[in-house]
Amino acid sequence: MFQHVMRPSVAQLQPSLIRQVANGAMGREDVIPLWFGEPDVPTPAFIREAAKAVLDEGNTFYQPNAGMPALRQAIADYMNGLYGTRIDMDRIVVTGSGMMGLMLAGQVVVADGDTIVTHVPTWPNLPSVQQILGAQVKRVPLTLVDERYTLDLDRLFDAVDSRTRALLINSPSNPTGWMLTDAEQQTILDYCRARGIWLIADEVYSRIIYDRPYAPTFADKITDEDRVLIVNSFSKAWAMTGWRLGWLTIPRGLLTTFEMLMEYNSACVLAATQLAGVVALREGEPFIRQSMARYKASLDLLLTCFADLPRVMCPVPQAAFYAFFNVAGVTDSLAFAQQMLAEANVGLAPGRAFGPEGEGYLRLCYAVEPALLETALDRLEPLLK
Amino acid sequence: MFQHVMRPSVAQLQPSLIRQVANGAMGREDVIPLWFGEPDVPTPAFIREAAKAVLDEGNTFYQPNAGMPALRQAIADYMNGLYGTRIDMDRIVVTGSGMMGLMLAGQVVVADGDTIVTHVPTWPNLPSVQQILGAQVKRVPLTLVDERYTLDLDRLFDAVDSRTRALLINSPSNPTGWMLTDAEQQTILDYCRARGIWLIADEVYSRIIYDRPYAPTFADKITDEDRVLIVNSFSKAWAMTGWRLGWLTIPRGLLTTFEMLMEYNSACVLAATQLAGVVALREGEPFIRQSMARYKASLDLLLTCFADLPRVMCPVPQAAFYAFFNVAGVTDSLAFAQQMLAEANVGLAPGRAFGPEGEGYLRLCYAVEPALLETALDRLEPLLK
Repeated sequence: MFQHVMRPSVAQLQPSLIRQVANGAMGREDVIPLWFGEPDVPTPAFIREAAKAVLDEGNTFYQPNAGMPALRQAIADYMNGLYGTRIDMDRIVVTGSGMMGLMLAGQVVVADGDTIVTHVPTWPNLPSVQQILGAQVKRVPLTLVDERYTLDLDRLFDAVDSRTRALLINSPSNPTGWMLTDAEQQTILDYCRARGIWLIADEVYSRIIYDRPYAPTFADKITDEDRVLIVNSFSKAWAMTGWRLGWLTIPRGLLTTFEMLMEYNSACVLAATQLAGVVALREGEPFIRQSMARYKASLDLLLTCFADLPRVMCPVPQAAFYAFFNVAGVTDSLAFAQQMLAEANVGLAPGRAFGPEGEGYLRLCYAVEPALLETALDRLEPLLK
Repeated sequence: MFQHVMRPSVAQLQPSLIRQVANGAMGREDVIPLWFGEPDVPTPAFIREAAKAVLDEGNTFYQPNAGMPALRQAIADYMNGLYGTRIDMDRIVVTGSGMMGLMLAGQVVVADGDTIVTHVPTWPNLPSVQQILGAQVKRVPLTLVDERYTLDLDRLFDAVDSRTRALLINSPSNPTGWMLTDAEQQTILDYCRARGIWLIADEVYSRIIYDRPYAPTFADKITDEDRVLIVNSFSKAWAMTGWRLGWLTIPRGLLTTFEMLMEYNSACVLAATQLAGVVALREGEPFIRQSMARYKASLDLLLTCFADLPRVMCPVPQAAFYAFFNVAGVTDSLAFAQQMLAEANVGLAPGRAFGPEGEGYLRLCYAVEPALLETALDRLEPLLK
């Protein structure tokens, strides 16, 4: 009824296939929900207490558009301590989620009729934002050889055309768990520099990694003048999904632009949330280590189980907390996910939600207690045999 | 350095002239800040306590895109109780601020090259969102006769052209305090219906009114199929500016579209914030009454003071909490606001921030204790004499 009077790119949006499975079953006690990218524990109490203290003090007022200086400095300190970089707080903008960071990045980078090049399968939100803003997204598939993903960089660069404004990279990747090497990142950065295009890097899974403290990052390769926007978030590493707190690392000279865009998208973030973020950064490392050990145990359990199921092919995720696995004979992943929900009471995301390249696959978030995952796998086994 | 590689509409954005005065003096103890539209008290304790209880319970998880059902139902109940309407929760979408509601509305309504018609002087964010999204904003000035504002509706409608997708109405208005009558709202609605265009109605000052419970609203005039998007917010009436909580009232049939747009803009709002909103709606009426009495006392004080200053002409605001006043002889409101800050330590917003139509004016937010306002006026008097 309203299609013809809507922004065409919005009229064309399709509802999430993940939500299509989950709607109606969200919150059902008998369902084990592994469909969303969310740890199964609340935000650690020490982070929640920090927020409560700010509410007690009564700071419920507007905050600066770019974020509170205390949080921007804490983010710069965190990055510099972790990555060995020298990023100052004038290059940090606090956003109301990583998602909002992606929206602001798109608002800066693309205009109607531009193209963006990205890799697939992909979290559907990444291309959708660019499409809403009028860009066409060119999709370059990851290559799967011997159950390992790689991104053919020549193929990625070949997709760049005269209207391309940016590469959009999500490493570590949702849903595949694939990630770029440092050398590949350097090649991509060099390419963007030479070509004069932007790089939007979604690094929200930077800390969800099992064999080192952090995944390869563009942060330690860029100068403060590179046209690179790095999106990060408190959601995954600090189990703060519901808070909607993230940040952008931007080139020097763009702070005023991003302050204006924050003003026109949501103005600012609640002080209690921002100061909870400060505490998360400063005191959250033990929680991250403990979470990674827990997720690693779940991953090992999952891979052991899958090894006994010949129909299942699951490239080992290098990072993030998703298993993105193929089930031989499945041609309709949406119907199969719905069957899993109906017959096994386990909620998974259908692979097609991540693009046609994901058909035949399912995504399972294993950021849960190993015991719960074991129950889920027991229930799923009859369907995967 | 980045202008030529940015979305053109974003490259053209101009920083806020209010911020240009306030930056560098925000938080200074010796300055009385009347530049922003914000009550001078923290959010009432009973609302903050509700949020803290949710944090204690540990609900820090993702929430539904359209908002928690408990809040959407509470909003529908609130509107129906106040306005005598029969709006159901399928027409309510919780947004991360009224500002975000305006951004989502723009994403639905306008495409590149469209026009939007609005009245001026105006809160700069209203046209800026539409411009970012590619629309041209046509500005129809309010008419000032005998120190009273009116909007010439014929002039408003004459500005509509073949590319116009929406009227954008902010009543009660920031910065002028002017508002539409019920009859004028009906005429505007009838016009939009006949013309087949959208109406975006920013009603965030609906409850900031002194002679009745609420300002005239489009909510009690629309059917559930009208192409009307009503933007509202918890910021002003419940002193919740920092929380970033608002809502949209949408036509039936657009819920899925707005759920997708929430997903792609920020995903959801913190449960603690949403359930604080429920408590605000259910238990906040005494606070609103008390605030209106306080603001009315400040307004009376202000008007009494201005009556003794022949250079000052201040149309009496019918609603909202701003005095938008002209000072004879002032031709550069930015310079004058800076002079007021430097010489009187009082922070006001320059009229030009609200468009060229506001030149020669200043905006003063009087949502403060009468005693504080009195001090501010004493300090300003030498400059206004």
